[in-house]
Amino acid sequence: MRAATPTPIATGVAPGNRLPGEVTKRLMFFAGGAHPALAQHIADELGASVTPQTAHTFANGETFVRFDKSVRGCDAFVLHTATGPLNTALMEQLIMIDALKRASAKRITVIWPFYPYARQDKKHRGREPISARLVADLLTTAGAHRIITVDLHTPQAQGFFDGPVDHLLAQPLLAEHVRRRYQDSAITVVAPDAGRVKLAETWADLLGGQPIAFIQHRKSLHAEHPDTGQLVGDVANRLCVVVDDMIDTATTMVGAARLLNAAGAAGVIAAATHGVLSGNAAARLSSSGIREVVLTDTLPIPDDKHFTQLSVQSIAPPADSRY
Amino acid sequence: MRAATPTPIATGVAPGNRLPGEVTKRLMFFAGGAHPALAQHIADELGASVTPQTAHTFANGETFVRFDKSVRGCDAFVLHTATGPLNTALMEQLIMIDALKRASAKRITVIWPFYPYARQDKKHRGREPISARLVADLLTTAGAHRIITVDLHTPQAQGFFDGPVDHLLAQPLLAEHVRRRYQDSAITVVAPDAGRVKLAETWADLLGGQPIAFIQHRKSLHAEHPDTGQLVGDVANRLCVVVDDMIDTATTMVGAARLLNAAGAAGVIAAATHGVLSGNAAARLSSSGIREVVLTDTLPIPDDKHFTQLSVQSIAPPADSRY
Amino acid sequence: MRAATPTPIATGVAPGNRLPGEVTKRLMFFAGGAHPALAQHIADELGASVTPQTAHTFANGETFVRFDKSVRGCDAFVLHTATGPLNTALMEQLIMIDALKRASAKRITVIWPFYPYARQDKKHRGREPISARLVADLLTTAGAHRIITVDLHTPQAQGFFDGPVDHLLAQPLLAEHVRRRYQDSAITVVAPDAGRVKLAETWADLLGGQPIAFIQHRKSLHAEHPDTGQLVGDVANRLCVVVDDMIDTATTMVGAARLLNAAGAAGVIAAATHGVLSGNAAARLSSSGIREVVLTDTLPIPDDKHFTQLSVQSIAPPADSRY
Amino acid sequence: MRAATPTPIATGVAPGNRLPGEVTKRLMFFAGGAHPALAQHIADELGASVTPQTAHTFANGETFVRFDKSVRGCDAFVLHTATGPLNTALMEQLIMIDALKRASAKRITVIWPFYPYARQDKKHRGREPISARLVADLLTTAGAHRIITVDLHTPQAQGFFDGPVDHLLAQPLLAEHVRRRYQDSAITVVAPDAGRVKLAETWADLLGGQPIAFIQHRKSLHAEHPDTGQLVGDVANRLCVVVDDMIDTATTMVGAARLLNAAGAAGVIAAATHGVLSGNAAARLSSSGIREVVLTDTLPIPDDKHFTQLSVQSIAPPADSRY
Amino acid sequence: MRAATPTPIATGVAPGNRLPGEVTKRLMFFAGGAHPALAQHIADELGASVTPQTAHTFANGETFVRFDKSVRGCDAFVLHTATGPLNTALMEQLIMIDALKRASAKRITVIWPFYPYARQDKKHRGREPISARLVADLLTTAGAHRIITVDLHTPQAQGFFDGPVDHLLAQPLLAEHVRRRYQDSAITVVAPDAGRVKLAETWADLLGGQPIAFIQHRKSLHAEHPDTGQLVGDVANRLCVVVDDMIDTATTMVGAARLLNAAGAAGVIAAATHGVLSGNAAARLSSSGIREVVLTDTLPIPDDKHFTQLSVQSIAPPADSRY
Amino acid sequence: MRAATPTPIATGVAPGNRLPGEVTKRLMFFAGGAHPALAQHIADELGASVTPQTAHTFANGETFVRFDKSVRGCDAFVLHTATGPLNTALMEQLIMIDALKRASAKRITVIWPFYPYARQDKKHRGREPISARLVADLLTTAGAHRIITVDLHTPQAQGFFDGPVDHLLAQPLLAEHVRRRYQDSAITVVAPDAGRVKLAETWADLLGGQPIAFIQHRKSLHAEHPDTGQLVGDVANRLCVVVDDMIDTATTMVGAARLLNAAGAAGVIAAATHGVLSGNAAARLSSSGIREVVLTDTLPIPDDKHFTQLSVQSIAPPADSRY
Repeated sequence: MRAATPTPIATGVAPGNRLPGEVTKRLMFFAGGAHPALAQHIADELGASVTPQTAHTFANGETFVRFDKSVRGCDAFVLHTATGPLNTALMEQLIMIDALKRASAKRITVIWPFYPYARQDKKHRGREPISARLVADLLTTAGAHRIITVDLHTPQAQGFFDGPVDHLLAQPLLAEHVRRRYQDSAITVVAPDAGRVKLAETWADLLGGQPIAFIQHRKSLHAEHPDTGQLVGDVANRLCVVVDDMIDTATTMVGAARLLNAAGAAGVIAAATHGVLSGNAAARLSSSGIREVVLTDTLPIPDDKHFTQLSVQSIAPPADSRY
Repeated sequence: MRAATPTPIATGVAPGNRLPGEVTKRLMFFAGGAHPALAQHIADELGASVTPQTAHTFANGETFVRFDKSVRGCDAFVLHTATGPLNTALMEQLIMIDALKRASAKRITVIWPFYPYARQDKKHRGREPISARLVADLLTTAGAHRIITVDLHTPQAQGFFDGPVDHLLAQPLLAEHVRRRYQDSAITVVAPDAGRVKLAETWADLLGGQPIAFIQHRKSLHAEHPDTGQLVGDVANRLCVVVDDMIDTATTMVGAARLLNAAGAAGVIAAATHGVLSGNAAARLSSSGIREVVLTDTLPIPDDKHFTQLSVQSIAPPADSRY
Repeated sequence: MRAATPTPIATGVAPGNRLPGEVTKRLMFFAGGAHPALAQHIADELGASVTPQTAHTFANGETFVRFDKSVRGCDAFVLHTATGPLNTALMEQLIMIDALKRASAKRITVIWPFYPYARQDKKHRGREPISARLVADLLTTAGAHRIITVDLHTPQAQGFFDGPVDHLLAQPLLAEHVRRRYQDSAITVVAPDAGRVKLAETWADLLGGQPIAFIQHRKSLHAEHPDTGQLVGDVANRLCVVVDDMIDTATTMVGAARLLNAAGAAGVIAAATHGVLSGNAAARLSSSGIREVVLTDTLPIPDDKHFTQLSVQSIAPPADSRY
Repeated sequence: MRAATPTPIATGVAPGNRLPGEVTKRLMFFAGGAHPALAQHIADELGASVTPQTAHTFANGETFVRFDKSVRGCDAFVLHTATGPLNTALMEQLIMIDALKRASAKRITVIWPFYPYARQDKKHRGREPISARLVADLLTTAGAHRIITVDLHTPQAQGFFDGPVDHLLAQPLLAEHVRRRYQDSAITVVAPDAGRVKLAETWADLLGGQPIAFIQHRKSLHAEHPDTGQLVGDVANRLCVVVDDMIDTATTMVGAARLLNAAGAAGVIAAATHGVLSGNAAARLSSSGIREVVLTDTLPIPDDKHFTQLSVQSIAPPADSRY
Repeated sequence: MRAATPTPIATGVAPGNRLPGEVTKRLMFFAGGAHPALAQHIADELGASVTPQTAHTFANGETFVRFDKSVRGCDAFVLHTATGPLNTALMEQLIMIDALKRASAKRITVIWPFYPYARQDKKHRGREPISARLVADLLTTAGAHRIITVDLHTPQAQGFFDGPVDHLLAQPLLAEHVRRRYQDSAITVVAPDAGRVKLAETWADLLGGQPIAFIQHRKSLHAEHPDTGQLVGDVANRLCVVVDDMIDTATTMVGAARLLNAAGAAGVIAAATHGVLSGNAAARLSSSGIREVVLTDTLPIPDDKHFTQLSVQSIAPPADSRY
Repeated sequence: MRAATPTPIATGVAPGNRLPGEVTKRLMFFAGGAHPALAQHIADELGASVTPQTAHTFANGETFVRFDKSVRGCDAFVLHTATGPLNTALMEQLIMIDALKRASAKRITVIWPFYPYARQDKKHRGREPISARLVADLLTTAGAHRIITVDLHTPQAQGFFDGPVDHLLAQPLLAEHVRRRYQDSAITVVAPDAGRVKLAETWADLLGGQPIAFIQHRKSLHAEHPDTGQLVGDVANRLCVVVDDMIDTATTMVGAARLLNAAGAAGVIAAATHGVLSGNAAARLSSSGIREVVLTDTLPIPDDKHFTQLSVQSIAPPADSRY
C-alpha cells in the first residue's frame, strides 16, 4: 500500500476486481518452514498449498513474518510444530496470527499436532504457572478462533481454550498398527505410570480386550528422574505394549522396558503419539532392547534420530483411502 | 471422535463429504424437551425440526446435554422456557450454548419467549442483585450472540445484553382478541398498579382511544402482598380490561377485580402475555368473578391449570396467514 | 436508599462515620442457609460470622438475595455447597456475587468445598459441553476474583478459572485416619477405575509405601453403569482401601467391594472426600459388606443418610490445634 | 518526566520520598471547570479540593486535559455535568478518566448528578441505539470502576453499568420542601404522563398519603410534541404538584399546568430533580401560571434562566447537619 | 415493531420474504449529513447509496440517530468526518455504530478519512491521556470491527485498534500533482519540523530523488506557538515543497514559508493531506506568499475557506480510471 | 500444598500467622537470572532482594518457573531483559506473570528496560504484524497491570498497553555525560536517519542549543542494509554526536561515522540507550574510528563485547544521590 501510484480510498473496500461486498471465503494454509513433510500432507488434505511468506529473525532474536499475497476474508489454518527452539516457534505462530487478524482474515484456526506446554496443565505445587492454559489464552489474544490438536497429554486441556477445540485421536492408528503386526502374540498393555492407566485401558479395548499392567512409582516429584518402580499385573511370557502420549527423554520408556524384561516379558513394544525425542533419546531407545518403537509424525523426526526399531505412522491418510 | 478406526487430522477441517472451506450456513433449532407445543410452532415457522439431543440429570442434580448430529457452521436458535424448576432450565440452556460454541456453531440466538429474572431489573434497595443483567451476561459468557424475546417486563432490559435483542410484542395480539370480542362494550383499560399505566395507555390506543383507570397503592415493598389500593379514574358500568405483562400468583389481578367490581364495573377482563400461574393462581382466577382471562402461550400452561374462563392466544401465526 | 429522609450525594462516598477514602478492608463471610455446620466451622476459622441475608424464592422459581448490612469495601468469602437442587444453589451463589459486586465489595472469593460439574471437564465425545469450564467462567462474569476448593475431580480444573485457585487437599486427612486406625493391617490401596490409579499411588505413599491394585473396565461410556471389571494386582488376605474423590451413587464402590471380597480380600475400607450419596447410595453402602466408609464434610450429609459404618472427618481442624 | 536531569528507573516505582510499596490511598476530586458551585459543595463534602488541571480545546475541536499534580494510587472522583455542549463535556470526561488510568489512579468513580443520554434507554422502534447503555460502556472502556448518580430517568439504567452504581435519590429532598411549605393545602400529586405515575405514587407516600391524578396521552411518539391529553383523577380545588425527573423544554410541564387549571385546580406546583431548561424553557415556565417551580442543583442553572417562581434545593446538605 | 398488528415470533428470524437462514450479506453505506461531496464519491465507489437515516439533536445537546430501513446482516461502512464540532460528530458515529450492532449488522467498518485525536498519540508529559488510543477503544466498545483511514499523523496509531486497519496513503496523489506541475523546477522538499523529516524523505523519493531540508525548532511545547526555527539544508534558488500531514492553524506552514523566502527560496509550495484550516488559517495562507497550497478532500473545505492559491485533489479516483 | 500433613480449608484464607483479612501489601522483586547487575541495582533501589525461584528448561525447550516463597498479596515487579534468546526470555516472563497471578499477587508491574519488538510498531506494508502491540496484549493476558520502560523506539508504543506505562528517559543521562566531557568542543548533533531527527532536536536542546545535521536515505526498506545516504547540514570541523535509541548491528552507526568523517567532521561520538550489539557489532564499532560509544546498561553487555571506546552509563543513580 506504500506504492508510488495513487491509492484511492475505495481500495481498502473492494479488493481485486470483485464487486464490493462479494467476499468469497477462501481456505488458506500457513505453515512457515515448520515440518515440511507434515505441512505438505495437510495441504494436500485441504486441497490448498502452503501460502508463501517472508520470514526472518532480526539480529537480536526478534521474529518477523509477512505474507506475500492477500489473505483478506480467508479461512486461515496455521500449522505450528517446533523444529527448533519451542518458544521461538510459538512466538512466530502468535505473530503470524496477529498479521492474519490485522489483514482481515475471516477465521483463524490453529493446528497444533503437538500442543506445547501440555504437561504444565495444573499447579503441582503452590506458585507454579498453568502454562497450558496460558498458551491457549495467548492464542485468543493474538486472534485465533479455533484449535485442532491431536492426543492431548490430558484431555481436560480442551477446556483451556474458550472456543472450539477439535481433539483428534491418533492412538487408534497406533493400535491398529500393533494389532495387525502382532496379532498372534499374547499381549499385555502396560502403563508406564499411574497417569497412563486410562490410556492403557483404551488400548486394551482397541486390541480386543487384552489385560493391563502398570508400574507404580514411589514419591517422585520430577518426571525427569523417576525411579524404576514396582510392577502391578502379570507380564511373564507376554508381549508388553507400553503406551504413552509422548516420548521425550525416553527415561520412562527405557526404565519400563528394563523392568518388564526383568519380570519375564516375551518382548517389549513402545507406542506413543508424539516423538519429542529430546537429547539422546533416540540412541537410548535403540540400545534398550525394545523390539519396536511406534510413533506418529505429529512432530518432525530428523534423520539423525531415526533408528532401526523405529516405525513412524503418518496421521495423514493414504492417498487411496481419501473420502 | 473416540472411534476405534483411525481418525486422520483432516477430519476436523473437512466435515462430511463437503469440500474444505465450503461451509453452508444451516439453520438449526434446539429446544430440548421444553414446551413441546411452542417448540413445534417455532420449528414450523423456521422450516426446521427440533434437533435431537441426549440429555439427562446426574444423580446429584448436574445437567448434561449432548447433540446427536453435527452442528458445525450452523445458525443455531435455542429455545428456553421453563416447564420445571427455572434455575435448572436456565443452566441447561447455558450448557446447551456452551456445547454449541465448542462444536463450532456459527451464530447462536437465544429465544426467550419469557425473559427469566426480568423483574429483578434494578436495585430496589441497597445490596440487591440486578439479576436481569446477570442472566444476559451469563448468556454472553456461554457463547450467545443474540436474543429474541417477547414483551419484556421493562423494555430497558434490551440494554442489558451487549448485542442484538429482537423485542417482539404480543400485546397487540391480545388487544386484537379483546377488540373483536367486546367491540360493543364501553371499555375502560385498567392498570393494576402504577408501573403498568404506560401499558394501559398503549392498550387504550390499540382499542381505538378508550379511557384509562389505575389503582394507586400505598407504600408496599413486596409484590406478593400488595394492599388493594385506591382506584383512580371512572369505571362504573364499564367493561374493565385489566392489563399486565404477566400473571404470576394472580394476587394483583384478583385484588384488582375485587376493587373494580366494588366500584360498579360492568365486568372484568384480565389480559397478560405471560401465564406464569404459580401455585394455585389458576384456581383463584377461576373463582374471582373475572369474565375472561386472556394469555399467550409464551409459557406452557399444563392441563391442570386450564379453567373455563381462560383463553390462550398463540404467538405463532395461523397457518393461512403464513408469509 | 429509598428512605423518606433526604439522601445527600456524599452518602455514596463516605459510608458510616468514617472519613472519605479511609476504607478499611473487612473480611466478611456469606453462606446463605447452605450446610450450616460447615459454614459455622469456616466462620470460626475466619474469625467472622455468617453475614445475615434476606433470601427467598419467587413463586415461579426465581431466586432472590439481599444482604442486610453494608458490604462496601469488604473482602468477601462466599460459601456454596448444595443441600438441595444443585443448579438452584449455583444460581443463588451467582446472584449473591452479583449483589456483592454492585454493592462495592472489594474482593470476592468463592469457597467451593465441592466444585460443581467437576466431572464434565472434557468432551468425552463430540458436541458435548465442558461444564466445569463454563461454571468457572460464570463465576468470573458474576464478579468472583478467586476460588478456594477441595480435592478436584481432576486437578486440571484449576486452569479453567482465570485467576487464583487455592486447591486444598483433604485426602491426607482421610489417609491419616486410616493409617491410625488400621496400622496393624497389611494394606493394599485399590483404585476402583483407571482414572483413580494416580490417587491410589498418592495414598500408597501417604500410608508408608503400600502396594496398589486397580480394577480394569471394558468399554463403558457411562460412569453410572460400569461393569464389575477385572482386578489387576494382589489383594488376597489384605485389607483393601478403595479410594476415590467422591461417592455419588456408590455403584462403583459397591461393585469394587464385591470384586475384592470375591478375590479374597481380608476386608474393604472405602475412602472419598465428597459424600454426594445420591439416591439410595447410603443404604447400598450400608449393606455392601464394606467395613468402614470414610468421608469428609465438604458436603452436608443429612441424618437419614448416616449409617453404622460411616465416619465423617471434618475439613476444619480441631480447636486445640489452631495456629 | 521529560526533564533535562537524569531520570533513574526507580522513579516510576517510588514516588516522592515515600518508601517503595507504601502507597497510601488518597481521595482526589476532579471537576474541570464544570458547574463550579456544585463542584465546591461536593469537594467540601469529600474534604478535598478540586484538583487543578490544564485543559484546552484545539482549534479543530479536539479536547485536551492534563493534571497538574501526581494522581498515582489515588481514589479518584470525577464530576461531570454539562455547562456547554453535552457531547464535548462527555468526551472531556472520558479523556480525564483515560489520563487517570494511565497515571496509575487506583480507583476511578464517576459522579454523574445528571446521567447523560438517560432517556435513550431502550429501542422505541427498530434500528435505534440504546445510548444510555453505550455511555456506560464508554466509561468502562476509558477506565471507570463505579458510578454515583442521582434520580435516574429509569432506575433500570443501574444495570447498564457492569459495576457498582450508587443511585442517590433527591426526590425526598424536593418532597420535603413541598411538604413544609404547603402542609396546609389539600394536595393532589399529578403525573404529567403515564411513565411518571410510579414517581407520583412515591410522592403521594412522601407527602403522607395524598391522592394521585395523571394525564393520559394519545398515540404520540415524540416527547417534544405531546398533545395535552386527558386528565384521569380528581383535581378540582386541590393544589396540584406535578412531578417529573427533569424539566427540559418545559412543554410537558406547561401543558399539564394548562390542563390542570382548566380542570379547576387550586394551583399548580412543578417539581423535578434535573433543571435542563433547554431553549426558552425558563421564560415559558415563568409565564405559565405555575405557582412555584422546584428544582435541584444537579445541573447548573445560569443567571439568565432564573425567574421569580423558581426555587433551587441543593443536593449538598447544609453545613450544620453534617454527619 | 410497535405496530398495532400482531407480530409473530418468527419475524425476528425471517425478515422480509427471504427463507430463514438465507442471509445474503449486503454492503450498506452510512454517512449521516457529514461531508456530502466525499460521501457521494465513496458511495459511488462502493456501488451503494447513502442509507437514509433520521437524526436530530435533543434540546440539551444529546444526539439521536435511527436508520430508516433494515440493516440486518449487512456489511456496514460508516463514514465520519467532522463538519461541525468534532466531539459531537464522534459521539454521533459511536451512536450510529451502536444502533447498527443492535440491529444485527454483520460487520461494521469505520471510514475515517481524518483520524480524530490522532495527534494525542502519546503522553508528552506525565498525567496526559492517549486520546488516539482511547477513540480506537471507543469504536470497539460501540461495535466496530475494522477501520479504514488515510495518512495517519503517526502510522503507529494503526496499532491502537485491535483489528484490521487499512491505512491508505494520499501523499503519492499530492506528490504526483506536484511532480506534473513543477517538473521543470529544481525542487527541495522541506520538513517544517523534526517530526516530518521522514515524510519529506518519502516525498524526495516520490519526486525522483530530490534533496531535503528541514527546520530545527528550539524547546517548544505547544504546537500552536512554535518559534520560526533554524533552517538545516540548502534552499537558495530552489522551489521548496513544504510537506505535512495536515494544515490546522497554518502557523507552522506560514512560518516555514517566511523562513524559506528569507533564505532565498525560488518559491514555496505547501502540501498536506488534511485541510483542517481552523480559524483564519485560509486567510493567513492566502496572504503568506505561498505559491500553491495543495490539499485533499478528506475533510470538507467550506466555500468561505477557498482561496486563489488552493488546489484540492480528490482521494476518489476519476470516473474514467475505474477498475 | 501437597504435603502429607492435613491441610485444613482455612489455610488458603489466612496465610502464615497473620489474622485473616489483614493483608499487608509487600513489594517483591522478580528477575530470574536475567541481567544480574541491573537486577541488583533495581533491587537496591526498591529496598528489596531478588525473590528466589526455581526455573529450568525441559528437554523439548519448554520453560518452567516456580517461586520459592509466598507471593500472596504482594506488589510484584518483574524484570525482563534478554541475555539469551529473546523469545525464550519473553515466554519465561509471561509464565512468571501467570504464576504470580494464580498465586494471588495483588499487582504485577513489568519492568522492561528494553521493550522487545519495539521496532515492529506499525505495518510498513500490508499483511505485517504489529508485534509491539501484540506483546503488550500478551502481558495483559498473562496478568500484568503496569509497565515501566525506558526510551521507547517510538513513544506511541505507550498507547499499545491498556494501563499505566511509566516511560522513563535515559537520553538526558547520556547527554549529560557528553556535555560534561566535551563541553569545550563545537558540537553538531547528527540524526543517522529521518526517524531520529526529533531525538537529535531534543539532544540539541539538552546540550544547550547546538545545531543539527541528518542523513537522508533513498528508498530502503530494510534497516539492516541501509545505504550510506546524503548528509544534510554542516559538520565540517565539528564534533559530531550521532544519536539513536539503540545500536543493534551497528551498520547504521558505522555508516554514519564514515560519511561524517568524509565530510570533514572533527570527530564522531555515538550515543544510544540500548546496547543490543548483535553479532559482531562490537568489533565493527571498535574499528570504525568512532571516538567514543556511550550506552546505558538497560541490556547486559557481556565481557566479550566490551571494547576500548565503549563507556556504559548506569540507569540506576549513584549511591550518594539517593532520595
